[in-house]
Amino acid sequence: MIIDSLIERIIKTNNPTAVGLDTCVDYLPQSMQDKIATLEDAGKFITEFNCNLIDAIKNLVPAVKVQVAYYEMYGVAGMKAFSDTIKYAKANGLMVIADVKRNDIGATAGAYSRAYISGTTIAGKKFTPFESDFITVNGYLGSDGILPFVNDCKMCDKGLFVLVKTSNKSSGELQNLTLQNGATLYEQMASLVQTWGSGLIGKYGFSSIGAVVGATHKEEAQRIRQANPSTFFLIPGYGAQGGTAEDLKVCFNKQGLGGIVNSSRGILCAYKQEKYKGQDYITASVNAVYDMQKDLEIAIKGE
Amino acid sequence: MIIDSLIERIIKTNNPTAVGLDTCVDYLPQSMQDKIATLEDAGKFITEFNCNLIDAIKNLVPAVKVQVAYYEMYGVAGMKAFSDTIKYAKANGLMVIADVKRNDIGATAGAYSRAYISGTTIAGKKFTPFESDFITVNGYLGSDGILPFVNDCKMCDKGLFVLVKTSNKSSGELQNLTLQNGATLYEQMASLVQTWGSGLIGKYGFSSIGAVVGATHKEEAQRIRQANPSTFFLIPGYGAQGGTAEDLKVCFNKQGLGGIVNSSRGILCAYKQEKYKGQDYITASVNAVYDMQKDLEIAIKGE
Repeated sequence: MIIDSLIERIIKTNNPTAVGLDTCVDYLPQSMQDKIATLEDAGKFITEFNCNLIDAIKNLVPAVKVQVAYYEMYGVAGMKAFSDTIKYAKANGLMVIADVKRNDIGATAGAYSRAYISGTTIAGKKFTPFESDFITVNGYLGSDGILPFVNDCKMCDKGLFVLVKTSNKSSGELQNLTLQNGATLYEQMASLVQTWGSGLIGKYGFSSIGAVVGATHKEEAQRIRQANPSTFFLIPGYGAQGGTAEDLKVCFNKQGLGGIVNSSRGILCAYKQEKYKGQDYITASVNAVYDMQKDLEIAIKGE
Repeated sequence: MIIDSLIERIIKTNNPTAVGLDTCVDYLPQSMQDKIATLEDAGKFITEFNCNLIDAIKNLVPAVKVQVAYYEMYGVAGMKAFSDTIKYAKANGLMVIADVKRNDIGATAGAYSRAYISGTTIAGKKFTPFESDFITVNGYLGSDGILPFVNDCKMCDKGLFVLVKTSNKSSGELQNLTLQNGATLYEQMASLVQTWGSGLIGKYGFSSIGAVVGATHKEEAQRIRQANPSTFFLIPGYGAQGGTAEDLKVCFNKQGLGGIVNSSRGILCAYKQEKYKGQDYITASVNAVYDMQKDLEIAIKGE
């Protein structure tokens, strides 16, 4: 099951990190930026940057998280870069989390699912345009909006991360509202996620249907972890957004399992940080991955 | 202001209909389907179908709603069809609602906004890959997830429709939960939408920041309309999903204004219906548009 593959790679690399490929032109080294004048140029150099980074980190982390917004902004050429990046990461043994936060109902949710999970069949032939291992989805529409994805995950051995408690400051505006039954909205969503994922629990006790739980909200993360022991977390908000390794250790169990932590700018733009000054972008990113691995290991395993 | 332009086109055509271009290969006439063997073929014939339909309906309706899921499923070629369809609709005087239900935070929401609303600047030149008049967004993440879009709407005179009460059966699982203050979640969302849109109210008293309110939930639609008189509605669920003109008249005020009603399959696939049997797909779709116009007019204006 896909969640087992993810966990096994986390164990093998001893690193619950997903490198976030939120690669926009502004993040590229100046020498690349200078050559970019069109959307097609942008797509080409973003792909080149991503592939170089994938080559360097492929044995250090279990997965990359590719944020589609940064590709859509470059139009059709950007979506080609998105597709090429996903394919290159998979071909190099990395698992791919497509951070697309898609949401719709019935047949339309099914169409999204074909794009990212199950593939599109034309004249008897199956095409897999943006095939990923996991995708993020938004559950505001209820079960009708999620079950088409869950069913395809069962059929194709893929997984989801459903938004539960997001890392941003105003996430509580809706997510922390208290319901009449005393629970908060994010707890209700977490409970639905556990239900949706109950048929997809792997050998480590975690489901392929996971939850997005921000590193920036420690108390909420702890409540979700305690109430939903079989839900695996995708954890954004570490680093640039202010979440620390100490904050997010509540997401992990005694075996050090329970989530995968994303870092995007902290790794992609490491070469711009004082700490890695003078290093080329690949070296700086690799060192940032090592530093993050150490930081997480100390917090999660107390080593 | 963009909401005024939309309302003026609704008045001019006497038709609050958005034709939903949820165009997938299965919806195309068999003669087209027979020629499709690749994703590129799919993109080409979907575009051809859409352009033919746009030519036929461009003076009958104010807008088209393009559902991006049906384009993403054909990968990069599908996204080209999405882009070409939007451009053709705009060039032919139709307003475009991109039904993308995007959602993310801060810089990432900004990236989505550049794709659909404000454009991407590269080396001092602005590119507008999927520029639309309105887009749909999902507000589960709170203000951080919506204000980047709202700010760009102000700057570029564009609009949003935020998911409030969706048309699907299970939408109440979360949206109808009662909060401690006695309101439901959808009412809370509707109230946020009114706040987000308060700076963008046009001359007809409606804001460019609107709400998605399903035709299938009459009671909820009425409550949202009464509490939020300045919120314009995008109304899905008419026809194929079971919503009737009678159900959705609660969304409109005494002047017959207040929303735009989407129909996708009911118009795209009219040629498959018994009612339009023997008509070519264009004629059938045009007749379906006329029939819907009449149906809405009788219900909304009592004529």
